[in-house]
Amino acid sequence: MAKDERNNTYTKIIATALEMFNENGERNVSTNHIAAKLGISPGNFYYHFRNKDEIIVLLYRRYNAAMMDSVAKQPHTPDIPGIISYLKSVFDIMWEYRFLFTDVNTLLARSAEFSGEHSEFTREKVAPFILDYLMNLVENQVLSGSREEMQELCINIWIVAKYWFDFDSSMRQTKLTEDTKLLGVHRVLTLMYPYLQEPYKHNILNCIQNHAA
Amino acid sequence: MAKDERNNTYTKIIATALEMFNENGERNVSTNHIAAKLGISPGNFYYHFRNKDEIIVLLYRRYNAAMMDSVAKQPHTPDIPGIISYLKSVFDIMWEYRFLFTDVNTLLARSAEFSGEHSEFTREKVAPFILDYLMNLVENQVLSGSREEMQELCINIWIVAKYWFDFDSSMRQTKLTEDTKLLGVHRVLTLMYPYLQEPYKHNILNCIQNHAA
Repeated sequence: MAKDERNNTYTKIIATALEMFNENGERNVSTNHIAAKLGISPGNFYYHFRNKDEIIVLLYRRYNAAMMDSVAKQPHTPDIPGIISYLKSVFDIMWEYRFLFTDVNTLLARSAEFSGEHSEFTREKVAPFILDYLMNLVENQVLSGSREEMQELCINIWIVAKYWFDFDSSMRQTKLTEDTKLLGVHRVLTLMYPYLQEPYKHNILNCIQNHAA
Repeated sequence: MAKDERNNTYTKIIATALEMFNENGERNVSTNHIAAKLGISPGNFYYHFRNKDEIIVLLYRRYNAAMMDSVAKQPHTPDIPGIISYLKSVFDIMWEYRFLFTDVNTLLARSAEFSGEHSEFTREKVAPFILDYLMNLVENQVLSGSREEMQELCINIWIVAKYWFDFDSSMRQTKLTEDTKLLGVHRVLTLMYPYLQEPYKHNILNCIQNHAA
């Protein structure tokens, strides 16, 4: 096998695994399913990856990097359209890796490597990141609240965003579609809503509708 | 086999399955594991249940009945200790059936019967129930907010409560313990907090600490 062909197969395995995990749920996709869809032998698959968990860890790292990259690039514009753009970029990345947000604790329990990284990422990066974002909005008089109130809000935003796709799909009779991302943005805004200063409370619904259009 | 012995085995299978699902996660427990723990043959197991999903559906119905029964019995005392007692009773029942709150959508997808009942229960019972509870607190001037605001709060409470055990266990390095129930009560209170009328805001933290003692 030439080196290019090997790299090509490696790349294809990752892309196909991500697509199949997102479409059918990670639990329902085996390494044999991935190999069959690509038309490669199980042996060729195992040349690149020891097992399914290795792909999951790799995809988790890519999600992690993509999220950090995306939020670092987004301007922190302290108004409602700015908040909506920011949240949209977060839900866009989550949607690309949405399988990670279903049964994530079972993945954790299975893979010690994944578990360690996940805990570190969420505890040390996600929470302080959200809190800084909220405190910046307080400083710019978009939100009003104490640091303690913003810490509680931060945890609530985190929980609601993390489980939004799972919750929304449990509410539907049909498969989850991309409109769930904007509904997720709306859901996070409802958490921030009681802390919004008066002028911002009034135009929040119009802003969401304009973004959906 | 005598009838009493059959009933006895049936009861033991359900109790053991619930215990094992809660301890190890439903995904990691097979019908063979349950039979082995009880010291019965797989044949004896299959005399009572066709498969694991049949036990899950039965446990889901029990959870459903226990929750409805518990919340119907609880007085709706419109003050902070009343709200805490009410929420504690909800998290108590959820804790008894906590396996249902991990990877619930995969269970749904697998079992059409379960899916139908789950959708009906959550859409038609849970949401109106929470909303009525919140509107009662508004009428009694514990909370202040419009019906629209209470509808959004209702959905947020529902999401946070549903995924609380899963979220809290992802934050811990060790196994989830019963103290998670009171943390869940606290978490739901933080969602209600911005809508609390002034006198109630001040004693909320004391009330939680007294309950924990």
